[in-house]
Amino acid sequence: MKNIMLTMEYDGTSYAGWQRQSNAMTIQQEVEEALQDLTGETVPVIGSGRTDSGVHAKGQTANFRTDSSIPPEKFSFALNSRLPRDIRIVCSREVSRDFHARFSATGKKYKYSMIVRPQDTAIGYRYLYHVCVPLDVSAMQEAAGYFKGTHDFASFMAAGSPVRTTVRTVAGVRLDWDDPFLYFMVNGNGFLYHMVRIMAGTLIEVGRGRIDSLSVPEIIQTRDRKMAGPTAPPQGLSLEKVYYEKIFS
Amino acid sequence: MKNIMLTMEYDGTSYAGWQRQSNAMTIQQEVEEALQDLTGETVPVIGSGRTDSGVHAKGQTANFRTDSSIPPEKFSFALNSRLPRDIRIVCSREVSRDFHARFSATGKKYKYSMIVRPQDTAIGYRYLYHVCVPLDVSAMQEAAGYFKGTHDFASFMAAGSPVRTTVRTVAGVRLDWDDPFLYFMVNGNGFLYHMVRIMAGTLIEVGRGRIDSLSVPEIIQTRDRKMAGPTAPPQGLSLEKVYYEKIFS
Repeated sequence: MKNIMLTMEYDGTSYAGWQRQSNAMTIQQEVEEALQDLTGETVPVIGSGRTDSGVHAKGQTANFRTDSSIPPEKFSFALNSRLPRDIRIVCSREVSRDFHARFSATGKKYKYSMIVRPQDTAIGYRYLYHVCVPLDVSAMQEAAGYFKGTHDFASFMAAGSPVRTTVRTVAGVRLDWDDPFLYFMVNGNGFLYHMVRIMAGTLIEVGRGRIDSLSVPEIIQTRDRKMAGPTAPPQGLSLEKVYYEKIFS
Repeated sequence: MKNIMLTMEYDGTSYAGWQRQSNAMTIQQEVEEALQDLTGETVPVIGSGRTDSGVHAKGQTANFRTDSSIPPEKFSFALNSRLPRDIRIVCSREVSRDFHARFSATGKKYKYSMIVRPQDTAIGYRYLYHVCVPLDVSAMQEAAGYFKGTHDFASFMAAGSPVRTTVRTVAGVRLDWDDPFLYFMVNGNGFLYHMVRIMAGTLIEVGRGRIDSLSVPEIIQTRDRKMAGPTAPPQGLSLEKVYYEKIFS
């Protein structure tokens, strides 16, 4: 039995997120159905983690076990011919038996993309959040810097999410302004439910002058969701990369 | 009577190009209908030029005449609320009486975007041509250099197009490789029918080793469409900018 790792992209616009659900189409279900059609096997495809409804991925990872004799690197092409146009397997390869897309992951990188100008865009609006007022990018940059490090990010988690600990380490943050586009990149060892979208929503409030950049450390300290900004909409978010410590092959 | 200039974006995927047609929906028709709905006036909206079916624009320009009392800069917002999601007016302003979006234009800039790797993409595939084999980008860069200057580009025009002259001046060309994306940018005083797409198709043939980069001057010289490469598909093409000599305000 082989363990196959997938690296994939998807446009999340038409899906209720990654994770299989009983009443809505999800990316996991599409991939599992394509795999069943290809190999005849009914096996779970384990993702590195969930992505929310409407969130995109450029570097989602997953794995599954198979007895199929299809060469590992051919799965990408064989699955792509069975998948909808907005889901593509970019790479498939055999990895060691103990590789698990979720438990083996050591970190993730997300990107939140905005277009900042009065008029919305016609091109790529599926991947951008439209902010119609000017933003103070330097203030946002200062605020984003406070996210770096190991903190209790309870203020940046959707209320009521069941987790053992709300402590996470943010390894890096970056804001890139490429007029009229603004990109917020963040990577770390793990992210709470809605964490990146609440960070983005908070940075936008800072950019609009509604939250002082200097108050971000205090927002973190209060561990109170109500202190942070709103949850920015899903279409701006993309899971860019999942990190693994070892080469599992 | 005011003369209003529009700068607009569109995702050309769902349209039979810019120019009004009797049997298919076009961008010009959408804008004219939105304008009629807004002002009650039935006036032509003059574009800087046609774009083909499926071709996009980030900087198409147009103008129209109106007796409406709507402030010129408000047309963008008022029209956007009446236009489909894949057409956006980015800017509207009053210009002098003699401004004509097509005849006043002194040049244009186009971008042809490709993704070069075995697997296609799920993100932004509406705006990319997928090339599944590796390309020799240096050879393409050399070939593209020969397009620069004033030449008779008859080899790079769809056969049978009725034009007075096939001489055009290409002011600049550029190829940007941002793995796995390849962008071909070209600007000049004017372009023949399908010219940029035939240039892109020819460069891809050079990248694949099927046309020698050194033979491009000869391809130009023959004035024979059959000597150049195929017409690259429309979805990779975008009209980026239209140049005007004077400030018309």
